[in-house]
Amino acid sequence: MAVYTEVSDEALRAFLAEYPIGELIAFRGIAEGVENSNFALKTTGGDFILTLYEKRVDPGELPYFLGLMQHLASRGLDCPQPVPARDGQALRLLAGRPAAICTFLPGVWPRRVRPQHCAPLGDALAQLHAAGADFPGRRPNALGPAGWAPLLERCRAEGDQVQPGLVAELDAALAGILAAWPAEGLPQGQIHADLFPDNVFFLDDAAGQPRLSGLIDFYFACTDLLAYDIAVCLNAWCFEADHSFNVTKAHALLAAYQARRPLSAAERAALPVLCRGASLRFLLTRLYDWTSTPAGALVTRKDPLEYLRKLRFFLRAEGPASLGL
Amino acid sequence: MAVYTEVSDEALRAFLAEYPIGELIAFRGIAEGVENSNFALKTTGGDFILTLYEKRVDPGELPYFLGLMQHLASRGLDCPQPVPARDGQALRLLAGRPAAICTFLPGVWPRRVRPQHCAPLGDALAQLHAAGADFPGRRPNALGPAGWAPLLERCRAEGDQVQPGLVAELDAALAGILAAWPAEGLPQGQIHADLFPDNVFFLDDAAGQPRLSGLIDFYFACTDLLAYDIAVCLNAWCFEADHSFNVTKAHALLAAYQARRPLSAAERAALPVLCRGASLRFLLTRLYDWTSTPAGALVTRKDPLEYLRKLRFFLRAEGPASLGL
Repeated sequence: MAVYTEVSDEALRAFLAEYPIGELIAFRGIAEGVENSNFALKTTGGDFILTLYEKRVDPGELPYFLGLMQHLASRGLDCPQPVPARDGQALRLLAGRPAAICTFLPGVWPRRVRPQHCAPLGDALAQLHAAGADFPGRRPNALGPAGWAPLLERCRAEGDQVQPGLVAELDAALAGILAAWPAEGLPQGQIHADLFPDNVFFLDDAAGQPRLSGLIDFYFACTDLLAYDIAVCLNAWCFEADHSFNVTKAHALLAAYQARRPLSAAERAALPVLCRGASLRFLLTRLYDWTSTPAGALVTRKDPLEYLRKLRFFLRAEGPASLGL
Repeated sequence: MAVYTEVSDEALRAFLAEYPIGELIAFRGIAEGVENSNFALKTTGGDFILTLYEKRVDPGELPYFLGLMQHLASRGLDCPQPVPARDGQALRLLAGRPAAICTFLPGVWPRRVRPQHCAPLGDALAQLHAAGADFPGRRPNALGPAGWAPLLERCRAEGDQVQPGLVAELDAALAGILAAWPAEGLPQGQIHADLFPDNVFFLDDAAGQPRLSGLIDFYFACTDLLAYDIAVCLNAWCFEADHSFNVTKAHALLAAYQARRPLSAAERAALPVLCRGASLRFLLTRLYDWTSTPAGALVTRKDPLEYLRKLRFFLRAEGPASLGL
């Protein structure tokens, strides 16, 4: 899934010689991640992750992503830290691709989210937002509200094949969301924008409780409404397998977040529409991948209709209280 | 590619509690390998590989594979060693699959084979054959000569779609190979039977020369002609990207092998037909996968015609000298 580019022995050796991280011990492709090629790299200096950035990533945006990770780590957030080569540069070329080595984070992402994961998650998300406050980079959210109408257009011809009436339902939802979207007045900053369970690592503490050990995969990070990051997490962490919303998980997430950064009244009022927008964002990218993947292909396509169910829930949710606030 | 089964947090925790290998630090799917699900497992006790055996592996054969690895490691061969749980059993169940933890082997498989890899390979292959001599298990080679005619039958209807005339060419080749196959008189023993470059790890020594650090993936191992294992390696290691046979590599492999175990006159005489048989074996399994994979599927299918070119080379190769002997 996540090795699109092979690295020759000579290229790897020459690449590693540029880094002060010791001698090569092991180098193995990692199955996780879908956008880039990732390798577990072990040297006499320790464990690292080597990432080759594939064609879906704009090389011009890599300095923002790597700079943000460096900045957040320097502010104490547990996240991968780009390792500079001897010349001070963390972003290099390998096998014709932009490439970087990052520090290895211990931990395991939760295959099944429990309420005990959600408070550490909310705490770490608020910590991320605080740590990013003085990062000078800016990256517009390419998958934010302005991107949703064009994405829906690209699915218009085939969208109803996934479910009859889907395109009309999404047209109506998009119009309502854009009309209610908070144009200004909400705090902005650096957001992760893709903080799904497979991007959050945990280790059990001595009492068997999950302790958050780090956040990974900052390649959708951007500069946008801080509360939108919460809306993404409510979508990604607080629904059960039967598509029901677990308000206990949501409350744990929100309470822990607010212990570090209380939401303003405007943010609290906007949370339902932000949640609808986040549902729509993942629905649309999944729908696009679904309709543009050849029939019969053996790749795993994520079900867009999962997010239709979430969108419908958030459309029905009238006030912040129903979301756990 | 190689994570077919997900493991829940609770199941992993309960599974690891059965082993005396410390606390979980990390658990990540590995992209390499195509038959089973493999995970890089790091605990406070070290690095390990956790394998879940998927449906292509017969659970009844796992004791042979794991027992052989244990035996070979105890005889000093560098190969993964099954880690017994507290009850002494290395083969357990996880997520509904047979599963085992093995020791981690340092090293990197060569993406481009150089002549310097081939002498260490030949040496390790002879070491494997010697180390297996007193292993009591027996496993017939399911992909040996008796399996080739049935495999060709399953490709008969669609084989010519890959290349016109292919099935007739393979019929003729198979008849010739079976007629010349050494029915008896050659030394038998435990063979790896799939010793391709991605199953052999190397590390550079201080002088920059590749030193073999271990052999992996014993899940095609069986009890068969020792020299057939050499024939597999000549197929897998000694052809260039332009399909030419590199006799320097073959000579290095064979000389190093014979430094540990000189081939008998009968083995030397049989080597060309064994090489043809090994070409045919990989040609047939690739052809079967090719014709039984849906058109348009995005999985990587290995090109069967690569092995047709190798088969034709070995059909032309008259004597052992042309193979580097």
